[in-house]
Amino acid sequence: MIVTGTDRASVRPTVAARKRAPRVMRLALAGCGTVGASLVSLIRRRQGEIEARHGLRFELSRILVRDPSRDRGLPLVRELFTASADEFLQADADVVVEVIGGFDPAERVVRGALAAGRPVVTANKSLMATRGPALQLLADEHERVLQFEAAVGGGVPVVRTLRSELGGHGVRAITGILNGTSNFLLTALADGVRYADALVNARARGFAEADPSRDLQGLDAADKIRILAWLAWGVDPAALPVQVESLPSDLEPLVRRAEARSGVLKYLAGAERDDDGCVRAWVRPVILPSNHPFANVRDEENAVHIDSESLGVLRLQGRGAGGSATASAVLGDLLEAAKAVP
Amino acid sequence: MIVTGTDRASVRPTVAARKRAPRVMRLALAGCGTVGASLVSLIRRRQGEIEARHGLRFELSRILVRDPSRDRGLPLVRELFTASADEFLQADADVVVEVIGGFDPAERVVRGALAAGRPVVTANKSLMATRGPALQLLADEHERVLQFEAAVGGGVPVVRTLRSELGGHGVRAITGILNGTSNFLLTALADGVRYADALVNARARGFAEADPSRDLQGLDAADKIRILAWLAWGVDPAALPVQVESLPSDLEPLVRRAEARSGVLKYLAGAERDDDGCVRAWVRPVILPSNHPFANVRDEENAVHIDSESLGVLRLQGRGAGGSATASAVLGDLLEAAKAVP
Repeated sequence: MIVTGTDRASVRPTVAARKRAPRVMRLALAGCGTVGASLVSLIRRRQGEIEARHGLRFELSRILVRDPSRDRGLPLVRELFTASADEFLQADADVVVEVIGGFDPAERVVRGALAAGRPVVTANKSLMATRGPALQLLADEHERVLQFEAAVGGGVPVVRTLRSELGGHGVRAITGILNGTSNFLLTALADGVRYADALVNARARGFAEADPSRDLQGLDAADKIRILAWLAWGVDPAALPVQVESLPSDLEPLVRRAEARSGVLKYLAGAERDDDGCVRAWVRPVILPSNHPFANVRDEENAVHIDSESLGVLRLQGRGAGGSATASAVLGDLLEAAKAVP
Repeated sequence: MIVTGTDRASVRPTVAARKRAPRVMRLALAGCGTVGASLVSLIRRRQGEIEARHGLRFELSRILVRDPSRDRGLPLVRELFTASADEFLQADADVVVEVIGGFDPAERVVRGALAAGRPVVTANKSLMATRGPALQLLADEHERVLQFEAAVGGGVPVVRTLRSELGGHGVRAITGILNGTSNFLLTALADGVRYADALVNARARGFAEADPSRDLQGLDAADKIRILAWLAWGVDPAALPVQVESLPSDLEPLVRRAEARSGVLKYLAGAERDDDGCVRAWVRPVILPSNHPFANVRDEENAVHIDSESLGVLRLQGRGAGGSATASAVLGDLLEAAKAVP
């Protein structure tokens, strides 16, 4: 055995010391539900490491919520919270984080922040799937970054990869498991868990909304594949037709049919560019052979395969849902956004 | 079936028109071997897409090579080439790309460019594995970016992921197939190809150097795991002990032993942080069960699994060797570096 480096078996981290005091980045946080609260905890837990490694200290300057009087079990003073989007937008902030979801007031917050020259980090798939290009133009005009890694794939870095690594690299097709909730339910059913129990479990773990119909109808995955098609080929996501085959309300028979064929039922989303340069997209349940790479994507995991001219098939797989995975993607974006703050 | 978006089945790309003329980015390119020539071709082939999507036009301002008189089959005027590092460093350039490899003159080029306030993109694993932190400090001092995605994993975006997405996220362990050459040879042997034929094939496809001993001894993978440990935990890569078990010069018996156990022989690299915060790293051949996720990493592919507190296991897999995959990673870095140019 060769031991290179030193004669010791292990080494302690010796971070190159930063001499300067950490830069304080004031965060205005819109939304303090599962993702927002996870983000606050994650930043708190990792503050030391973030300071040492990135020379940054994040401080909350304002939090936009529907009900400022609600106790969220977070060690934050009541004065940080506001229910007014206008008041929120006037807060002193170096970066604005939007994790409310939906359109109102999320869109107003994102537009207002960009128009005021502030970098924005958002996890909002519905917003990016419809207004993405317009918001990106607004960000470009104000020379500010707009980051949205958490909008697709949770902790799987697919947005960053399509924006940089594969930007202009001849992407041919994208296929993936993009909805963590339905994948969690399908995995549980395949393991013999009853649907009602699986749904309770998914909700308890923060993967499923009170009403998972957007997940099971394929509308969440459709939003996400729109965003990826936009990043890969520059198509307007709002104008991209997506053929969506919803999951049936009774999933049992479909799961059993897959089992009878020694396969696994997965809910896939995809988009391809044909030889004429036309892009088509789809979401549909597919029975896969049990040795298919997507067959072992379990629970709330997401996976994406990107087929490109110069790279062949690039595969990304990891936790796609839940507050922790999403907050982790938001924090990654925050670190990027902070780099771009003058 | 639900069709959302429009009533058409597909849509043509409609890139949001950039009104401004593209920004010209002058590249000084150090090295014009497999990777450098692939990069020149890739930029040429994708120029239209890069202009439309990123508003950038890359133009070569100088190329550093050992022998400027050699014909490289590229449509480049002879005057671009120089054999003098000093002359090269005086060229007008917005970004400097280093794909020479090794230390001399690569280190002088990278240091000189950063000291002159130029962003640098490098694919140099040996250099980053030993001088990475010092070069990063130099880049930080001059407020310029230093990008090195292509140094590890070829086209697999592991450097970017560890630098941003997982920066400060409690990485626990990293495991991977990081050497494309040895993986290509092991795959061929498992498929029944003779070693000598496999090696000829690997060289013809640009995966193996004339002398693949650094690959088979594990020294290339050791450099790469050092870089990943640095990014994950801030350890000084040059001081990190790596326990390296080389592949035997006659690989046949080991491959057959794996087969006899219905397994697959893979050459793995890994690093972990233990509970005391100490980091250890290793490179060794391992017989994996055939259903292990690494077992289907074939040919020149690389794969990395990153286990972290907030994300669980994130898996990345794709082409890890060859001019095209490496050039693709360099181009991704160039697009990032261009964003940071004032």
